[in-house]
Amino acid sequence: MSTNYTQGYSKATTSSHAARTIHSDAAFVLPLIDPADRILDVGCGPGTITTGFATIVPQGEVVGIDISDEVLATARSSVPAGLSNIFFQRANLLEGLPFLDDNFSVVFSSQVFPHLATAEMRTAALKEMRRVTRPGGLVATREVAEMLFYPRASSLNELLTGNMNKVLRAGQKDGWFPGGEMPALFRQLGFKPDEINVGAGTTVHSGEEGRRAFGAGYGARLSRSDPYYESWKRVGISDEEIDRTVEALNVWMGDPDAWCVVLQAEVWGRVRH
Amino acid sequence: MSTNYTQGYSKATTSSHAARTIHSDAAFVLPLIDPADRILDVGCGPGTITTGFATIVPQGEVVGIDISDEVLATARSSVPAGLSNIFFQRANLLEGLPFLDDNFSVVFSSQVFPHLATAEMRTAALKEMRRVTRPGGLVATREVAEMLFYPRASSLNELLTGNMNKVLRAGQKDGWFPGGEMPALFRQLGFKPDEINVGAGTTVHSGEEGRRAFGAGYGARLSRSDPYYESWKRVGISDEEIDRTVEALNVWMGDPDAWCVVLQAEVWGRVRH
Repeated sequence: MSTNYTQGYSKATTSSHAARTIHSDAAFVLPLIDPADRILDVGCGPGTITTGFATIVPQGEVVGIDISDEVLATARSSVPAGLSNIFFQRANLLEGLPFLDDNFSVVFSSQVFPHLATAEMRTAALKEMRRVTRPGGLVATREVAEMLFYPRASSLNELLTGNMNKVLRAGQKDGWFPGGEMPALFRQLGFKPDEINVGAGTTVHSGEEGRRAFGAGYGARLSRSDPYYESWKRVGISDEEIDRTVEALNVWMGDPDAWCVVLQAEVWGRVRH
Repeated sequence: MSTNYTQGYSKATTSSHAARTIHSDAAFVLPLIDPADRILDVGCGPGTITTGFATIVPQGEVVGIDISDEVLATARSSVPAGLSNIFFQRANLLEGLPFLDDNFSVVFSSQVFPHLATAEMRTAALKEMRRVTRPGGLVATREVAEMLFYPRASSLNELLTGNMNKVLRAGQKDGWFPGGEMPALFRQLGFKPDEINVGAGTTVHSGEEGRRAFGAGYGARLSRSDPYYESWKRVGISDEEIDRTVEALNVWMGDPDAWCVVLQAEVWGRVRH
């Protein structure tokens, strides 16, 4: 996964990750959590969701894993004093998780699958998540299905969304975000259709401030010095097209009618006894 | 509007409307409602949302308007006994509402704007909604922005979504649902950008039963005897393409990995004092 995590860990990337909380990004699993649950947060990044989980399982514990030592250091340093049921550990989902079978009652991921470029990687990842979930437990994923810019005619729907998909699919032109196909992946791994629950959430970027935060974040990632810019170059997107994308971001940020919605597939499966 | 309400009032159409509640379709405005509010529900259909509003404004009242006497009769007969602060009235938004200026504290619509084919109609409609809202009050709209079928390769994204948009835009090929453009419409009518709040909700159709209910509903609407079928024929969609759409619906309904999400733009504007 290290070689596939294409967007890198610049401040422009990780600061957008740090805004995530259990309420913004894990609300769909909260009603299913028991105070004694043992939760695995896969691809925990700076750990804001992980920490939130720890506060709602006072009799349980939470393990956050990520492939980046640097990000894990940030996560560890952000844990509020007195929260002792939270652990962070370096691990690579694709190389196998360092946990026994049936180890967790809830295994959660948010925005991990877009970074797994092939169907084989995505299958291996979900299989590993399922392996460490105990019977009766829950595998839950919140993964982006669409990124839609309005006004609908905004060129960002091609320039940013289209190119992001291309990058995440290692250069394939007609790739797309994985959210919509997550229910199929669950079923392929042996979850019965009636054990799979499919919902959808949204993340909205609107208003002058909201647009500026979101747009400037992508603008910074696409600047020449950012590893995210390099990930675009690697799949053959030209500087000229990158410049057009940044320009379209600026137009969008300045348009009082503009907004963006990221559609999130919220899928969970119950592991059979 | 009567001439523009293209999909007609067959049972296949109105039964899908009757599943709507304030919790499924108006959750985004509920935190803003005061028990003494006077609410107008524009295009109330069978009145399930209207009735829900009435239960949360015990010191206020709710008026539901629609252009169809038949649907209003259903709405009136569905009001629970003892709920006396609810009224239904026939009215046509495009011909002018039979209310004085500044009459309501909340004016709400759900799925009204897709049935207004032109920008002029949509502007006139929102202007009229704003006119009857008192200063300090709220104009709130929940209008579809996208209808997305998964697996993403599903031909329904062209056959059903594409043709629906064509019908709703009176035959224009590159039309789309109005949700994404609602913030622009609010601003054009004089709401300041910081008086407009933009969010997004979803309606998901998944699981065998959920797919069957949704798919069979559209299948029935597209049967030769339904006014909805006639609305497709009127804009030149061939029987052959309609048959292909119904066939694609059947394939989708039978696919255990398939699901659909309707993305809803949830926009409200505060009318200035």
